[in-house]
Amino acid sequence: MEYRIEKDTMGEVKVPADRYWGAQTQRSLENFTIGGHKMPIEVIRAFAILKKAAALANHELGVLPADKKDIIAQVCDEILAGKLDEEFPLVVWQTGSGTQSNMNLNEVIAYRAHVLLGGSLLDEKKKLNPNDDVNKSQSSNDTFPTAMHIAAYSFVVEQMLPKVKALRNTLDQKSKAFKDVIKIGRTHLMDATPLTLGMEFSGYVAQIDYGIKAIENALDHVLELALGGTAVGTGLNTPKGYDVLVAKKIAELTGHPFRTAPNKFEALASHDALVGLSGAFKQLAVSLMKIANDIRLLASGPRSGIGEILIPENEPGSSIMPGKVNPTQCEALTMVCAQVVGNDAAVAIGGMNGHFELNVFKPVIIFNILMSARLLGDACDSFDKHCAVGIEPNYPLLKRHLENSLMLVTSLNPHIGYYKAAEIAKKAHKEGTSLREAALALGYLTNEQFDEWVRPEEMIGSLK
Amino acid sequence: MEYRIEKDTMGEVKVPADRYWGAQTQRSLENFTIGGHKMPIEVIRAFAILKKAAALANHELGVLPADKKDIIAQVCDEILAGKLDEEFPLVVWQTGSGTQSNMNLNEVIAYRAHVLLGGSLLDEKKKLNPNDDVNKSQSSNDTFPTAMHIAAYSFVVEQMLPKVKALRNTLDQKSKAFKDVIKIGRTHLMDATPLTLGMEFSGYVAQIDYGIKAIENALDHVLELALGGTAVGTGLNTPKGYDVLVAKKIAELTGHPFRTAPNKFEALASHDALVGLSGAFKQLAVSLMKIANDIRLLASGPRSGIGEILIPENEPGSSIMPGKVNPTQCEALTMVCAQVVGNDAAVAIGGMNGHFELNVFKPVIIFNILMSARLLGDACDSFDKHCAVGIEPNYPLLKRHLENSLMLVTSLNPHIGYYKAAEIAKKAHKEGTSLREAALALGYLTNEQFDEWVRPEEMIGSLK
Amino acid sequence: MEYRIEKDTMGEVKVPADRYWGAQTQRSLENFTIGGHKMPIEVIRAFAILKKAAALANHELGVLPADKKDIIAQVCDEILAGKLDEEFPLVVWQTGSGTQSNMNLNEVIAYRAHVLLGGSLLDEKKKLNPNDDVNKSQSSNDTFPTAMHIAAYSFVVEQMLPKVKALRNTLDQKSKAFKDVIKIGRTHLMDATPLTLGMEFSGYVAQIDYGIKAIENALDHVLELALGGTAVGTGLNTPKGYDVLVAKKIAELTGHPFRTAPNKFEALASHDALVGLSGAFKQLAVSLMKIANDIRLLASGPRSGIGEILIPENEPGSSIMPGKVNPTQCEALTMVCAQVVGNDAAVAIGGMNGHFELNVFKPVIIFNILMSARLLGDACDSFDKHCAVGIEPNYPLLKRHLENSLMLVTSLNPHIGYYKAAEIAKKAHKEGTSLREAALALGYLTNEQFDEWVRPEEMIGSLK
Amino acid sequence: MEYRIEKDTMGEVKVPADRYWGAQTQRSLENFTIGGHKMPIEVIRAFAILKKAAALANHELGVLPADKKDIIAQVCDEILAGKLDEEFPLVVWQTGSGTQSNMNLNEVIAYRAHVLLGGSLLDEKKKLNPNDDVNKSQSSNDTFPTAMHIAAYSFVVEQMLPKVKALRNTLDQKSKAFKDVIKIGRTHLMDATPLTLGMEFSGYVAQIDYGIKAIENALDHVLELALGGTAVGTGLNTPKGYDVLVAKKIAELTGHPFRTAPNKFEALASHDALVGLSGAFKQLAVSLMKIANDIRLLASGPRSGIGEILIPENEPGSSIMPGKVNPTQCEALTMVCAQVVGNDAAVAIGGMNGHFELNVFKPVIIFNILMSARLLGDACDSFDKHCAVGIEPNYPLLKRHLENSLMLVTSLNPHIGYYKAAEIAKKAHKEGTSLREAALALGYLTNEQFDEWVRPEEMIGSLK
Repeated sequence: MEYRIEKDTMGEVKVPADRYWGAQTQRSLENFTIGGHKMPIEVIRAFAILKKAAALANHELGVLPADKKDIIAQVCDEILAGKLDEEFPLVVWQTGSGTQSNMNLNEVIAYRAHVLLGGSLLDEKKKLNPNDDVNKSQSSNDTFPTAMHIAAYSFVVEQMLPKVKALRNTLDQKSKAFKDVIKIGRTHLMDATPLTLGMEFSGYVAQIDYGIKAIENALDHVLELALGGTAVGTGLNTPKGYDVLVAKKIAELTGHPFRTAPNKFEALASHDALVGLSGAFKQLAVSLMKIANDIRLLASGPRSGIGEILIPENEPGSSIMPGKVNPTQCEALTMVCAQVVGNDAAVAIGGMNGHFELNVFKPVIIFNILMSARLLGDACDSFDKHCAVGIEPNYPLLKRHLENSLMLVTSLNPHIGYYKAAEIAKKAHKEGTSLREAALALGYLTNEQFDEWVRPEEMIGSLK
Repeated sequence: MEYRIEKDTMGEVKVPADRYWGAQTQRSLENFTIGGHKMPIEVIRAFAILKKAAALANHELGVLPADKKDIIAQVCDEILAGKLDEEFPLVVWQTGSGTQSNMNLNEVIAYRAHVLLGGSLLDEKKKLNPNDDVNKSQSSNDTFPTAMHIAAYSFVVEQMLPKVKALRNTLDQKSKAFKDVIKIGRTHLMDATPLTLGMEFSGYVAQIDYGIKAIENALDHVLELALGGTAVGTGLNTPKGYDVLVAKKIAELTGHPFRTAPNKFEALASHDALVGLSGAFKQLAVSLMKIANDIRLLASGPRSGIGEILIPENEPGSSIMPGKVNPTQCEALTMVCAQVVGNDAAVAIGGMNGHFELNVFKPVIIFNILMSARLLGDACDSFDKHCAVGIEPNYPLLKRHLENSLMLVTSLNPHIGYYKAAEIAKKAHKEGTSLREAALALGYLTNEQFDEWVRPEEMIGSLK
Repeated sequence: MEYRIEKDTMGEVKVPADRYWGAQTQRSLENFTIGGHKMPIEVIRAFAILKKAAALANHELGVLPADKKDIIAQVCDEILAGKLDEEFPLVVWQTGSGTQSNMNLNEVIAYRAHVLLGGSLLDEKKKLNPNDDVNKSQSSNDTFPTAMHIAAYSFVVEQMLPKVKALRNTLDQKSKAFKDVIKIGRTHLMDATPLTLGMEFSGYVAQIDYGIKAIENALDHVLELALGGTAVGTGLNTPKGYDVLVAKKIAELTGHPFRTAPNKFEALASHDALVGLSGAFKQLAVSLMKIANDIRLLASGPRSGIGEILIPENEPGSSIMPGKVNPTQCEALTMVCAQVVGNDAAVAIGGMNGHFELNVFKPVIIFNILMSARLLGDACDSFDKHCAVGIEPNYPLLKRHLENSLMLVTSLNPHIGYYKAAEIAKKAHKEGTSLREAALALGYLTNEQFDEWVRPEEMIGSLK
Repeated sequence: MEYRIEKDTMGEVKVPADRYWGAQTQRSLENFTIGGHKMPIEVIRAFAILKKAAALANHELGVLPADKKDIIAQVCDEILAGKLDEEFPLVVWQTGSGTQSNMNLNEVIAYRAHVLLGGSLLDEKKKLNPNDDVNKSQSSNDTFPTAMHIAAYSFVVEQMLPKVKALRNTLDQKSKAFKDVIKIGRTHLMDATPLTLGMEFSGYVAQIDYGIKAIENALDHVLELALGGTAVGTGLNTPKGYDVLVAKKIAELTGHPFRTAPNKFEALASHDALVGLSGAFKQLAVSLMKIANDIRLLASGPRSGIGEILIPENEPGSSIMPGKVNPTQCEALTMVCAQVVGNDAAVAIGGMNGHFELNVFKPVIIFNILMSARLLGDACDSFDKHCAVGIEPNYPLLKRHLENSLMLVTSLNPHIGYYKAAEIAKKAHKEGTSLREAALALGYLTNEQFDEWVRPEEMIGSLK
């Protein structure tokens, strides 16, 4: 490979001749060969937005000339269009402030601008300086958390939540479609009083609704941007009014209501906004785990399980057992839930271990936030399209289970009391008979009373 | 010990002769000798409220006569007054629905009422029946989660948050008191540009404010009560309008705006409200861990640490090192934070493992919720009174650190550029000289320019 | 209450007149009113052992006269006999080094000794000094971790593991008793090829065996004692040979093979031994969660579940559903498992946050270790006695499920290939017929071949 | 793209014309577009080993002809040489049994063999059948866990542990090099009695040694292979002696002492071996977090921190603060530790949620195991080469801190008692004087006694 020589304040570095990055990116590449997880592209794109916004604000406030503003904006647009993806090779496991990725952006923007303006990468002096021009009025300490918030908010709102809501809506449609399908209830995994299949699904819908609400509550804090705090939160080396203006520019560029953080010290030194968001992801994961577990249990069988619903048969389920079909979408979803709960633990540990003016677990936090958001969105989408949408009641089993149930006896409580009702149920259970047979044998009620009092369709209330 | 014989649907049980509880409580006592953690008294008290509310609602809706309503309410008031605490001996590690604690309440209320009405515990037939009267229009499946929500909400709002807010206010006062105390900043634990001690503390205040907001957001879901759902969420065996009315009664009795859950299936089958609340506790714990770590680092020394603040000396710190004083309140608080994060994991695992119509990790969830709430409240209170309130700046060290700082060089960036500024800092660092000496030696600026440009008091911006 | 005045290096403190503790205990009581969890009695008892061992070693090495040695040993014996339990009122949430509990022991031993020697608590000068005599050759920094190890090892070996092993043995007996009970297997919760109920249980036994092995592996590190390291691990102010000798004394007093830690710096500054032990607890909890889940699923029903085993009916299961019986022991056990996993997170966070020569999360670590150990032991014992021991096969359902199974088709693979076998299974599934009917209809084999090839009893291999 | 038609038991599927995979791989690709994380290549390679071993064992036991054995082995060798990497496109988030990846291997091996034997991918009938030949005597249920164990064990032993041990050795060399560098100790972050820098580092070495031992203990269980259990653990459709023989073949092919699992039911239904391994990873992460935190605190400054060691300056540390250098390798390492602890939570949740004969969280478990192993290995390597190896004492600060220390007073305890010693320390602290001055002013000892008794070099014991 051919190289050119780049310099930073520590000296000379050999950089691949045709790459736009400079000395500091190269140092990071060499110093951190860990794990292979690239800094997420969503963070790179968020950086492009904020670098452009900063250039616009700097110009408007009189500290950056128009030509530099324009060329910085042009390169940022190239980055946003995905034309320079190969120029961002750094991994997550670098400095905990993300400084090296900030410098990666600064270098690529400055040197690409230099080339667009007719220069050559081999020129020792470039027309734009990564620190003095591209990073003007900025520090890694405020840009990186700003990029984290832009990336997290945008991804969640644009990519993840629509998929979660689509699953929610499918389950809601199922709830309505199944509103008259009476079935046995189960508590402690044991037969209980009846409800409708629609009611069961309405509980799933409610769970997801609460999860979405928790995420939306958490997102409000994520809308606050650290930019303008620079090195330690004081806003050193920024023009007056910059923090408010640059947040406004970012809001305009993204279409999301970002605003400047009221306290920049909190915004640099902690990541509670993302700790909170991750906690909300965990809540949703907890809900989805329960829902997916229920659905695979309800679909279990086909002959020796619970079998009250049918789910789509998407692929052969076994390499050895012919004809086997499995609840594979439930499995992918529950594996995702396990991962999201694990990621939340990583975020919390990162969040709690900051010191003084800067939390230096920034890359690991945003890595996990974006991974969880993507996994939850994708898994909901997959589960929706390949499983939920095709769920159907298995009427014969639903009917058999309902008719066999001993817990219909509960409707006798108001008429004969809990203790006599228990006696009936126990007798039927022990002798393997029906409730009616046991009730009549015990003489606690007449055949007509049984017909009048034990009516599953009147035991289920109604769903509001 | 003397015993009497009590019966339930399974047969006879020997119960201590003078105890108000009955057969089912006794069975639980014998079947679950695990761990020794009593069901939290807050849950027992919450049950007393809901049993009273249920009696009032049942009477108002015509399914419970006035005399039974009155005597149930009277016993509940005794429980709330703490007169019957010894009658609730069951542990957390029982059935996962909390049925046995519900029956403990039903039995004690029924039998104590029987005695208050002139009966004897030895009477085979009691004037009130635990299931048919005290538990009327109820199931463990809706009462236990209702008690969980009443206990959690009340404890958090009445006991925990006031203590958290008191600490927040003390830190806010410190922030204001220290607003002019300029000091060196630190990022990556390394010397950075200056800020004020008040700004540092303002970040702590902001963190706690966000934590409180997260908790308050989560509490909204906790206001929703399962009561009225009975066995599986359908409201079987409840009179019309009962769920709304009983929630209103509970709101009146507690003074908190409880309301009936719009979806009872979710309210029985999941505990996402408490999963969410626990996640908010975790966020606060993450914040407090960071704050307490900062404070003990800032107070470290007295001679070979950072030593920029002084904290109260509350007790001798060492059994072997004479005169040693330690940041013990920080230690208690950070230990509490570790526990709260652990408790959150337990809550999440409980939350995700429900099946069908009922989550059966109820006792472990409320145990951890109440433990975390109490620990956070108490630790904030202790930290407030025994540490935060007494924090004072250590002016000599603050001044020495500020004056020595090489990072004041950052203020030269706009004048001479990042690279020359770096050259100055590196020279001073290498040679152990002051910035001024290095700057002049390099000839990048004059003595007068140094005075004009390097002014810590102008590097700190202002706190809004 | 009446008080006397005690002094420490910070001045005078009012102490309840009749209590043996002194100034430092009293300060802690007043400074840490957090949570109400007393320092576990197992830690207090472990301290009594180590204080006695230290006195013996100090005397043997010539730094403590015989009379002081004897009286210290006498008081320690009183503590071990439970006679002074009320003298240790401090909570877990104190200084992170446990210094205050060490001083609590030092004070109580010194002052009780003073009284035993004829003195009065009101004497200003006591015959033994808490620091100079009782704490001789010790620091909180080495005594507290030593007490943690003594308490943890002893509890696990004496109290917890026997109960875990008893459950293991019961399950092993069941495995052997059920060795000929052929049943349908389930993978992905779907019907699969057959095995025996004994084989299923043998998997549970193997899981517990591996868990026990993991715990025993972890215990080896717990046998290493910090004592002799004193303040920072250097052994300052200890006589030569003290560390080895005092560990030998502790081994003699406890009957466990404790030994001095080869590296005292690690033993004070980290708690990896207990982090490792907690991780092993977590492994066992993960296993028990799986086992308990299986058992409640296998016992589900009685009419609309899987229902292949019967478990003891210990108590009425519902306050509203008459005759309901639930797998309550499974529920208690799985709640315990959730708690143990949460406790493990707390231990890990405590373990990772030490600084320099001392980890100051000691009390929270041992609190969680002992809680987990007790819960696991007790829950295994309860589950063993009240559930496992009474598990019986439900033969009619086992038989029906086995006969209905479509997955018996797997035995045809070697004869007609996977694809034709799948065709048979799919046809039978779709048409609701038996495998035999489908196979014959497709003409892939004869009636006699079916009899010869499809033999569940030959599909199950044998358990080694 | 051009397609060909492939069939499985569910019907026809369009597959890219030039790909070796078949219908089931294609179905998975289309049904699981989640997250984008490919099944780790280590798992694919492990599968190649086991498919080859199975072919060898099947042939040796007379159920697979030599020509099929040979061609299967040949394709497996191609996979191991990395020639077919593009043929394994499936993601982690698929069926929880990994069946689809097993079929991916079966299909690619069968079809590639067909081509090597002169056939065309367009042939409807291939010379080898994925299920009947390549998967002979196997099921996904035993192959996937076997591949998990082969991949995990091999990676840990070959790739991860050598890097961990290299860091351990570097720290050990530092410990020895610094054995005479006396320095102040710190407990509770406060000045304490002295030790040597070598002793401090010896504690780190000991921590890592215990971590390695924990990992090695856990690896023993990972050596056990599920292969031979087939569908549910019974070994259905395997020839006699197959399980032992195939494990022997795998041991020969890998050079690692793999053996057949004594209980196949445990080996399919649980993943406690990997839960245990992950727990050991967590222990190591906890240790490394502590070590890295210590090192960055010791290196903090350069002028206003603790500053007792110097670490390599690898890159400019700030985009705004000129000349700043940060402990970036500590940051990468601690971020990795946070991730490993999070991954461990994901593994535990996966481990605890299996049902009956099969745990279906297999892919998420091995994904996290391999991620943690790689991150720990790489981060240790990076930290070793770019930080640990270059650590040097900062003698001037070490000396200043030691001389200023008030805790040298501890050496006076045996001579004048703890209380008088405390008086000296407190006086010196309050008045800002030296210990000597305070001691003489109080008249508790002479100048000569001070010289004789207070000798840091005699307070440090010796490192064994």
